[in-house]
Amino acid sequence: MTDIAHALRDTLLALTRIPSPIGEEAELCDHVEGRLTRSLGGEAITRFHDSLIVHAAARNDAPKIALVGHLDTVRTQHDGPPRIEGNLLYGAGAADMKSGLAIMIELVERLDLDALPCDLTLIFYEREEGPFEENRLGPILDTHPELHELDLAICLEPSDNQMQLGAMGSIHATLTFLGRTAHSARPWQGDNALYKAANFIRELEQREPHDVELDGYLFREVMTPTIVHGGGPRNVVPGQAEVNVNYRFAPGRTAEEAYAELRELAGDQCKIQATDLSPAGHPHAGDRFIQHLMRCGVNGVRSKQAWTDVARFDAIGVPGVNLGPGTAAQAHQPNEYTELDHVFDGYGIFERFFARSEDNPLY
Amino acid sequence: MTDIAHALRDTLLALTRIPSPIGEEAELCDHVEGRLTRSLGGEAITRFHDSLIVHAAARNDAPKIALVGHLDTVRTQHDGPPRIEGNLLYGAGAADMKSGLAIMIELVERLDLDALPCDLTLIFYEREEGPFEENRLGPILDTHPELHELDLAICLEPSDNQMQLGAMGSIHATLTFLGRTAHSARPWQGDNALYKAANFIRELEQREPHDVELDGYLFREVMTPTIVHGGGPRNVVPGQAEVNVNYRFAPGRTAEEAYAELRELAGDQCKIQATDLSPAGHPHAGDRFIQHLMRCGVNGVRSKQAWTDVARFDAIGVPGVNLGPGTAAQAHQPNEYTELDHVFDGYGIFERFFARSEDNPLY
Repeated sequence: MTDIAHALRDTLLALTRIPSPIGEEAELCDHVEGRLTRSLGGEAITRFHDSLIVHAAARNDAPKIALVGHLDTVRTQHDGPPRIEGNLLYGAGAADMKSGLAIMIELVERLDLDALPCDLTLIFYEREEGPFEENRLGPILDTHPELHELDLAICLEPSDNQMQLGAMGSIHATLTFLGRTAHSARPWQGDNALYKAANFIRELEQREPHDVELDGYLFREVMTPTIVHGGGPRNVVPGQAEVNVNYRFAPGRTAEEAYAELRELAGDQCKIQATDLSPAGHPHAGDRFIQHLMRCGVNGVRSKQAWTDVARFDAIGVPGVNLGPGTAAQAHQPNEYTELDHVFDGYGIFERFFARSEDNPLY
Repeated sequence: MTDIAHALRDTLLALTRIPSPIGEEAELCDHVEGRLTRSLGGEAITRFHDSLIVHAAARNDAPKIALVGHLDTVRTQHDGPPRIEGNLLYGAGAADMKSGLAIMIELVERLDLDALPCDLTLIFYEREEGPFEENRLGPILDTHPELHELDLAICLEPSDNQMQLGAMGSIHATLTFLGRTAHSARPWQGDNALYKAANFIRELEQREPHDVELDGYLFREVMTPTIVHGGGPRNVVPGQAEVNVNYRFAPGRTAEEAYAELRELAGDQCKIQATDLSPAGHPHAGDRFIQHLMRCGVNGVRSKQAWTDVARFDAIGVPGVNLGPGTAAQAHQPNEYTELDHVFDGYGIFERFFARSEDNPLY
C-alpha cells in the first residue's frame, strides 16, 4: 500500500469515526476546520455556520475550480463501530460521502498549491440529506458571490468513480382528491375519494417514461406516486385522499415549467400543492474542463438519473459534474461501507485532473 | 303535553345528562339499575359488568319478548350541555339511543306487568359503538342461555319509528399489496405497490351493487374501500400499500361465506386478513310477532341496510327487528339531538304492541 493509500484510509476512518447525522455536523466541521487550518493556514478558511469554504489556491485570471462535498449523513443502523475489514471501510457516510471528503482533504494537502495553474476552492457543507430548502449550500452560494465565478464545480457524491453529468430536477406535490363521506353500508349516498385517487394513480402507471437527450446523454423523465393516504374511520366512505407525486424531469426546463405539466395532468381532478421544486442541472458534456476530467481515468460517463447539488450550481451559471469514489449502492444503507481501492483510484483521477499535461486546459 | 310525554322527556333528559361514551357506561348503568330496582324490585335485575338484564315479567309457556338497547354513545363534540329546545332534546346519545332506553324504562314502569300475557326482558348493554368482538351483548348472550329461548328481540336503535327488518352483515379486511422499493428517480428498478392497490380499488369501483331479495325486502350488497395507506418516504417507490375493504353482505349467507367471496376477488393480487366478521340478520318478515308490530303504527317498514345487534340474536335463533324513536340522521353527529314528538309516538307503538286486542298474538 502506498503512502497516499495509507493516508486516505486513515483520513477516511477518522472522518467516519465522527458521527455527523444531518443537523449535527458541528463536530465534524470542527475536525476538518482544525486539520485544514494546520495544513493550509487559517486565512484560507471561511466558516459559515457548520460549513466551510476553503480557498486552497487563489488565482486571478485563471480557471476557478471547486471540489464540493457535504459533511452530513443520513441516520442509519450499524452493527459495529466504524472499522476496516480488508478492502471495506464500514461506517455511516463511508460511501456517502466521507470517501469524497477524504480525497478533497488529502488532495489540497498534497498538491503543490503554489504551482497550481488554477484557483481552487473546497466547499464542505451541511444538510444535504434533507429538503432542498434546508440544504446549507443554498445560503452559501447566496452569500458568496465569488462562487458564482467558478468555472467548474465537481460534487464528490458517491458514483463508483463514474462521471455522471447533470442532474434530474425533482418536484414533489401533494394531490388532494375530494369526495363526499357516507356510511359504508350506503356508499351510493357518498362519493368515494379513493376511487378518484386510484384513477389518477392508474393514469400515472400508464404514462410512459419520457427520454430526453441532451449533449448525447439520455435523461429519463418519470412521474411516480410515492405516498397515498386516505379514508378512515373504516365504516365511512372516504371524503378525502392524498397522493404525493414525485416528478423527476430532465434538464432543459425550469422546475416551474415541469410543475405546470404536472398541474395540467392533474387538471380539475384534485387540488395540488407543490412541496419541493428542485431544479435540474445541464450535462455540460462539451465543457472543456469536463472533457478533460473525462480523460483522467473515470469509470465511464453517463447522465445523472437523480437530483444532486450540481443543479444548484447550474442555477447560478456554474457548470457542475458528479464524480466521487464512494460505493454508490451503499449510500443510505444500514451497515454502509465503501471500497478502499475505489477511494485510492478516485484520488488518482483528481491528481491527474490537476497535473500538468499537454492536453490539460488548466495549464 | 300528556303525563307520559312529560315523563318520557324527563327520563330522556336525565339519561342524556349522564355521559356514557363507549367504555364508560358504569355511571349510567348505576342510574338505570337504581331506578329499576326502586320500581321493579332488585330481584328482577341481573347486573353483568356494566350491563343489565331485567326480567320485568316472568311467564312460562308464554311468548318471550325482549327490548334491547345499548347504554354507550360515540364520542362527539357538543356546543352546550344536554338540554331541551322546543321539540328537540340535545345531547350525546339523545337519538342513538337513549331515546330508546327512555321508552324501555317508562314502558316497564307503566305497563300492568301482572296482567301481561308474555314474558318480558329488557337488556341494557355496553360497548355497542365499537368492534363486534368487544360488544358486551355477545358475552351476555353466551352466558345467559335463557335468552336463547326468546321469541322476539326488538332493538331500539334510532330509526325514526320505522321498522327495519334484519341486518346487513359486515366484513372488514386488510388487503396488503406488496411491491419492491426503488429510488423514485429510477422507478423501473422497482415495482410500485400503489399501482397494485389502485387497480384493485378500481375493480371495486366497477363492481355493481348486488341486490338480494328476502321475504320481499331488498338488501343491497356493497363492497367499499374505506382506508388506504401506502408508501413513504417520498423519494422511494412504495413497496407496500394497505387497503381496508368493508363488505356489507345480505342475510342468507354466513360471514365466512361472504369473506370467501372477498378472498376470491382479491385472488393472488395481495395478502388478505379479516379484521371483523359480523354476521347478517334475516328479516323474519313473516314472523307473527313482527307482523303484529308492523300493525302498531310504525312509520313504514323496510330492510335494514346496515349492521345492528339484530344479527347477534339471529345467530342464536332469535328473530330480531329494529325499531326505535331516535332521529336516525342525528346518530353520531356533533350536537346530536332527537325529536321529542317521535319519542312520544314511539312509546305509543310499544304500548299498542303489548295492549290487549283481537289480533294481538301475545294474547
